[in-house]
Amino acid sequence: MTNATNEMTVAETRKLVDWAVRLKFSDIPQSTVDKTKRLFADWVFCAFAGAGYRTIDGLKAVADETGGAATGACSTFVGDKRPPYWAAYINAGAGHVVEQDDLHNASVVHPATVVFPAAWAAAQNKGASGAEFIAASIVGYEVACRVGRLLGREHYRIFHSTATAGTLGAAAATARILGLDAEKTLDALGSAGTQAAGLWQFLATAADSKQVHCAHAAGTGVQSAFLAKHGVTGAHDILLGPQGLFAGMSKGTPDASVLPFDGLYEVDATSFKFHASCRHTHPSADALLDILTENNLSPDDIARVDCGVHQSALDVLGPAEGAASVHQSKFSMGFVLGTIANGRSAQLADFSDARLEDPAVRAFQKKVHMYLDPKVDGAYPAKWTALVKVTMKDGRTFDKFMETPKGDPGNTLSDDELLAKWHKLIGYAESSVDVDKLAKELLVLETRPSMDGLI
Amino acid sequence: MTNATNEMTVAETRKLVDWAVRLKFSDIPQSTVDKTKRLFADWVFCAFAGAGYRTIDGLKAVADETGGAATGACSTFVGDKRPPYWAAYINAGAGHVVEQDDLHNASVVHPATVVFPAAWAAAQNKGASGAEFIAASIVGYEVACRVGRLLGREHYRIFHSTATAGTLGAAAATARILGLDAEKTLDALGSAGTQAAGLWQFLATAADSKQVHCAHAAGTGVQSAFLAKHGVTGAHDILLGPQGLFAGMSKGTPDASVLPFDGLYEVDATSFKFHASCRHTHPSADALLDILTENNLSPDDIARVDCGVHQSALDVLGPAEGAASVHQSKFSMGFVLGTIANGRSAQLADFSDARLEDPAVRAFQKKVHMYLDPKVDGAYPAKWTALVKVTMKDGRTFDKFMETPKGDPGNTLSDDELLAKWHKLIGYAESSVDVDKLAKELLVLETRPSMDGLI
Repeated sequence: MTNATNEMTVAETRKLVDWAVRLKFSDIPQSTVDKTKRLFADWVFCAFAGAGYRTIDGLKAVADETGGAATGACSTFVGDKRPPYWAAYINAGAGHVVEQDDLHNASVVHPATVVFPAAWAAAQNKGASGAEFIAASIVGYEVACRVGRLLGREHYRIFHSTATAGTLGAAAATARILGLDAEKTLDALGSAGTQAAGLWQFLATAADSKQVHCAHAAGTGVQSAFLAKHGVTGAHDILLGPQGLFAGMSKGTPDASVLPFDGLYEVDATSFKFHASCRHTHPSADALLDILTENNLSPDDIARVDCGVHQSALDVLGPAEGAASVHQSKFSMGFVLGTIANGRSAQLADFSDARLEDPAVRAFQKKVHMYLDPKVDGAYPAKWTALVKVTMKDGRTFDKFMETPKGDPGNTLSDDELLAKWHKLIGYAESSVDVDKLAKELLVLETRPSMDGLI
Repeated sequence: MTNATNEMTVAETRKLVDWAVRLKFSDIPQSTVDKTKRLFADWVFCAFAGAGYRTIDGLKAVADETGGAATGACSTFVGDKRPPYWAAYINAGAGHVVEQDDLHNASVVHPATVVFPAAWAAAQNKGASGAEFIAASIVGYEVACRVGRLLGREHYRIFHSTATAGTLGAAAATARILGLDAEKTLDALGSAGTQAAGLWQFLATAADSKQVHCAHAAGTGVQSAFLAKHGVTGAHDILLGPQGLFAGMSKGTPDASVLPFDGLYEVDATSFKFHASCRHTHPSADALLDILTENNLSPDDIARVDCGVHQSALDVLGPAEGAASVHQSKFSMGFVLGTIANGRSAQLADFSDARLEDPAVRAFQKKVHMYLDPKVDGAYPAKWTALVKVTMKDGRTFDKFMETPKGDPGNTLSDDELLAKWHKLIGYAESSVDVDKLAKELLVLETRPSMDGLI
C-alpha cells in the first residue's frame, strides 16, 4: 500500500525524469541552445569576477584542508584542476558572489551557478562533449526551476531556493552526464532532495552563506548523482511525499502540474542580470532610472521615493536595508537606488568599500521606502514588476510602473550588451582573460569534443 | 536595529558556545568521561559491523570518484586513510547502518554517528590528544542534543533530527578541535545550520538515505568549522532567527532555555541500544519480552498484540510496517516483535534476508497493532515508554508498561553487556578485530597522545 501511494504522488516527478532521460540534443530548438550558451558564458565571466573574493578563498581552503590534493580533471576558477565534487563546490560559489549571474523569475532560482558547475565538472570528469554538456545543463535548469516553482513563495520566505531546488538541478544535470536511467535519476533526486538546504537567516548580519549555499547545492548534487550511479537509492517521492520536501519546507497545496516538461524550456524563461544588485531591486531600479532620465532630475531635488514591490522583496531586502557591507549593500533597496540616483548606474564597480562611505548615496538611501503593492505582488513571481513614485522637494511627483525589467526574456540583453557586461566583469577582476576570444569559443560550445581547455 | 534584534535572540546560543569554548577536560566529571569512552567504543564496533554494507560501498565510491585520492591523516572503517571531510563522511554512514549506535532520548538524535566521525577526523588531522577528542565530543553531544531538543517533536515529524541537529553537533566538535573562539564557533554553527538537511521520506520505500544523512551531517559539520577557521561567516542566530532553522523547519514556540549548558551532560542522558532495531520499537520489545518470559508464552497461542506508543513511533514506524527489506524490517514494529516472539531476541543476526522469509515472524507481524497512548505520548521524548497488551487465543490478556527500556541511562548496559554486544557486532561482520584488546584501548582513551593507530 505504501508503495502504491508513493507511485500516485511520484507520477509528475517521474514524467519530468522520463523527459530528462530521453531528451536528444537534436530535439532542442537552436534558439534554446543559443540561450543556454549565453547563460553559460555569462556565468563563466561572473565566476572570473568572483574567484578572488574572500569567501571563495575560504571555499578553496576548505577543499584543500578537508578534501585533499588539488588534482583532478575538472577546471576551477581558482586556477587549478580538481575532482568533480570540489570543482563544483568552488566554482558554484565563485559564480554567485558578484551577484551578476542569471535568475529564473517564476522559481526565484539562480540556476546557472548551481547547474553549470555540476554539469561542467561531471562533463570534464567523463570526457563529455559540449553538446552533451548543453543538454545536461538544460535538464538541470528544468529540474531546478520546476522544483523551485513547486516549492513556491511560501518556501522562498524562509529558504534560499537556489540552494534547495538547485541541489536537485545539479543532481539532474550530473545524472544526465553520467547517463543514468530514469530509476537511478529518481534515486539521485531523492538523495539530492533529502540533503537540500539553505536558510535566508544570513541576510540579517550579512554573513557569507549565500556562496556556501551554492557550493553546497552544486557539490551535493554531484554527490547525489554518483551515489545513484553506485546503487545508493533515494526517495523517488522526495518532492511530494508526506515526509518530503514540500511537506517539510513549504506550505499550502502543491501544484504538481508544474513539474513535467511542457514544451517551454526554463532556459528560455531565464533572465540575464543587468544591474549588479539583488534581482528584487531591479524593477524599481529600472523604474527610477527611467524617471530620472525622462525628466532630467537631480537626486538633491528628490524628497522621497516609494517603491511598490512584491512580498518576497520585503522578505529578502528588508533585513539588508542597513547596507553594512558591500555584499549587503546589493540587497538594500535604498542603497541601490542611491547608486542609480547618483550615477545612473548600479554596476559591479558601483558597490565597493569606498561607496559604502559615499554621503550622497547614504543620504538618498534614507529617502527610499518599500511597501507591498497588491498589483505587483499579484503578478509575482511570473512577472517581476514595480511601481515607483518619486516625490520632489517642490511637491511634484513622478510615477513609473516597470512591466519588464532589463534582462528579462521580454527585454533581454543583446549580444553587444552581454559582451559589454562581460568586459566590465573581467575589468573589475583585473583579469588578463581575453574576453572577446573566450566569448567566441563559448558561443560555439556545441562544436567542442570536450569541455576541457576553456579556462 | 537588525543586529540588536539578532543579539537578543542569539543570546541562548551564545551561552552554549561560550561554555563549549571554555570547557576544560579537567572540569569534566570522571563518570562523564567514562560514559563518553563507552559511547565511542560502542560506535566504533557498530562502524566495524557496518563498514561492509552496500550503502557504505556507495559512500566510498563517491569519495573515490568525486573527491580524489584516498590519502590523508584520518582513519576510515573501509581500510584506508583520507582527508577529514571524506573520513567523516564515510565513517558516519558506517557507524549508523546496523542501527545499533546510541540514542539521546529527549532530542531523538543519534549523536555518536555524527559527532564522533567529525571529532575523530579533525583530531587526527590536527594531531589532537585523546583527552582533547573526548572534550570535543562532549561539546558535540551538547550541541547536537540541545539543538535537537530545541527543534522538538514537530521537527522530528518530517525531519531526521540526527541529520539536521547532528550537522551542528559535528561542526561544534570540529570547531573545538580547531580551537576556534566563540565568534568563529558561532560562524561554524551558522554555516552548519544553513546546510542542515534530512527528510524522513526515504522510509516509505526503504531507500538508503539514513546513512547518507549521517555522512552529510558529519562531513558538512567538518566543512562548516573549517569555513569558520578561514573567515567565512555564518548567521549567529541560525537557530532562532526569523529566517532560521526553527522558523523554517519546526512549528510552535521554541523553548530557547534548553540551549545553554545546565550542568547536566547530554552524554550522561544518552542510551545504548540493546536491540538492533529502531529505538522506537525498544520499549514495546522489552515489554513483550517480559510478558513472554514471565508467563512462559508461545507465539502460536497469541492472538493479538496492542502496542500503546508515542506519536513519533507512529510517524517513523508506520511507513515501514511492510518490512520490505532488511533495513526496513528494523523499523517495522510487527516484524521486530515477531523476532522477539519467535526467538526472544532482536539482535543484529535476527535481521537478515533469510529472516524476511521466515513464516513464523511474518505471521506474528500481522498480529501486532500500534495505537497512540496518551500517557506514553505525554512522557515522550523525555522518557521512551510503551504499554503492551497481549491477547491470547484463549482470551487471557497480559499487560506490561515499560517504564525504562534496556540501555536507557536508568537501565544501562553493564560493561559485560557492552562487551558481549561488541563481540556480537564483530562476529556479525566476520571481522578479525580483537574485540577485547581494542575495547581495553578505547576505555583508556584519555591517556592517548593522539587518536592515530586505533583501527
